[in-house]
Amino acid sequence: MSLILVDVLAPGGPRPADPEAPLLHADDLGAVRGDGVFETLLVRDGRACNLARHEARFRASAAMLRLPEPDMGLWRRARELALAAWPGGEAAMRWVYSRGRESTGRPTGYILISPAPPRRTRVRVLLAERGFSLDAGARAPWALIGAKTLSYAANMAALRHAREQGHDDVLFTTAGGELLEGPTSTLVLVRDGALATPDPGEGILPGTTQAALFAEAAAAGIDCAAGRLHAAELHAADSAWLVSSVRIAARITAVDGMALPDPGEAAERDFRRLCDRALAR
Amino acid sequence: MSLILVDVLAPGGPRPADPEAPLLHADDLGAVRGDGVFETLLVRDGRACNLARHEARFRASAAMLRLPEPDMGLWRRARELALAAWPGGEAAMRWVYSRGRESTGRPTGYILISPAPPRRTRVRVLLAERGFSLDAGARAPWALIGAKTLSYAANMAALRHAREQGHDDVLFTTAGGELLEGPTSTLVLVRDGALATPDPGEGILPGTTQAALFAEAAAAGIDCAAGRLHAAELHAADSAWLVSSVRIAARITAVDGMALPDPGEAAERDFRRLCDRALAR
Repeated sequence: MSLILVDVLAPGGPRPADPEAPLLHADDLGAVRGDGVFETLLVRDGRACNLARHEARFRASAAMLRLPEPDMGLWRRARELALAAWPGGEAAMRWVYSRGRESTGRPTGYILISPAPPRRTRVRVLLAERGFSLDAGARAPWALIGAKTLSYAANMAALRHAREQGHDDVLFTTAGGELLEGPTSTLVLVRDGALATPDPGEGILPGTTQAALFAEAAAAGIDCAAGRLHAAELHAADSAWLVSSVRIAARITAVDGMALPDPGEAAERDFRRLCDRALAR
Repeated sequence: MSLILVDVLAPGGPRPADPEAPLLHADDLGAVRGDGVFETLLVRDGRACNLARHEARFRASAAMLRLPEPDMGLWRRARELALAAWPGGEAAMRWVYSRGRESTGRPTGYILISPAPPRRTRVRVLLAERGFSLDAGARAPWALIGAKTLSYAANMAALRHAREQGHDDVLFTTAGGELLEGPTSTLVLVRDGALATPDPGEGILPGTTQAALFAEAAAAGIDCAAGRLHAAELHAADSAWLVSSVRIAARITAVDGMALPDPGEAAERDFRRLCDRALAR
């Protein structure tokens, strides 16, 4: 598998590194504590999509973790180096920024490009209680609900749990059955020609793809709203989607084994086109 | 700072590695997803303390994350190599075991010894709501409450939050005020000559130091119990402690800025001696 790696915080500035050689020390707090943040961007047509929103969330996540403010000039130079080295084709570009070595206190930062994994355009999801209350983000800011941290073990465990039971993905809910998000995606519902998503203020990660989609839709005169959504609304919607940077949009075809209504090919195509247009800006 | 590093899963078996040279690849799932487990042991008098309990929890954590079952023979050989190389003095020995490189699927495992940090023997703690419900461990197993994962960003954030406000450490509680654990420690109360700790079945990590202490205490005829403890009981206890492998025991002197009663030097010394005896087995 071809990979492109750029060491963003190398002394002297960003420089390409061999992805087949080790980069991180054993005491890197990213590796031993998950103490850092990341972003994953879609690389399409030789450029990184939805860049401004990813940059904004990256900076916000770093601030929530009290990491030193990232020097976005360095990250931009590193990004250009990485894109220039990428041979082409759609890809996932990861930005990883950790607190760095425990023994030196110097932060670690790198950009890694890897081929986009095969896209799953339709998914059967399992509803899974996330285990914390809807307002945890407000009452327990140390829970870092709105930061995209490297501490994703529980998200990965939820995905494994779902796949062991024959589902493709997960949709987290509160104990009361309110819809939150996927482990690596944001939920979007289409209802009567309008778009809806769970309120990003309510204990979920603000989705960059969802935000781009809503901006594009609003500009096209489509009604868009964020609010509380209950699990029952999945079945009442015209269609339900998990959106994320690299996968873009996967239509939810079943929830806990119960099929959702098929919106028809034209509706599905329209939604995907809207996403593609949003990412092309 | 002197460090000792052993690559546990190197081809050909465990071998010492240079801790000042990078060990982990940029796409290690431990580093990009916090997708792995760890243990931290006290090294004292040239040996790793409380070994059987750490080994048991390590294996249990790996199983909860569906990591390949660790080959404990390899980990034991690696441990002996690391201990033989350690120049002496009390130290922290970390075992880190991750899902490994995304691009190869080969797990990563290493042992790192570093000098024990200066011990804080008394701490002022901040009560902090952890943000998930008491029974999350049972209802949402993917939350991995009972596994010691590399995804510690929220624990580190809680400690930073407390320190920014002039406290030394954190004691997590439920929304209802029930006591859970510290971000890197277990709570033990002394009341009327008996020991109490929050029930490890109730959404907290089973503490290896607490277990060793309770075993030693029970053998000495001291009553030991695990159960639900409310925040108010901190003030009613004779003394309250955060116990963990390397720090061993830190007495809680204040909670949310309110001083706890001082048990007196003799009581404090007795508790520390009990801990030391427990770890010497």
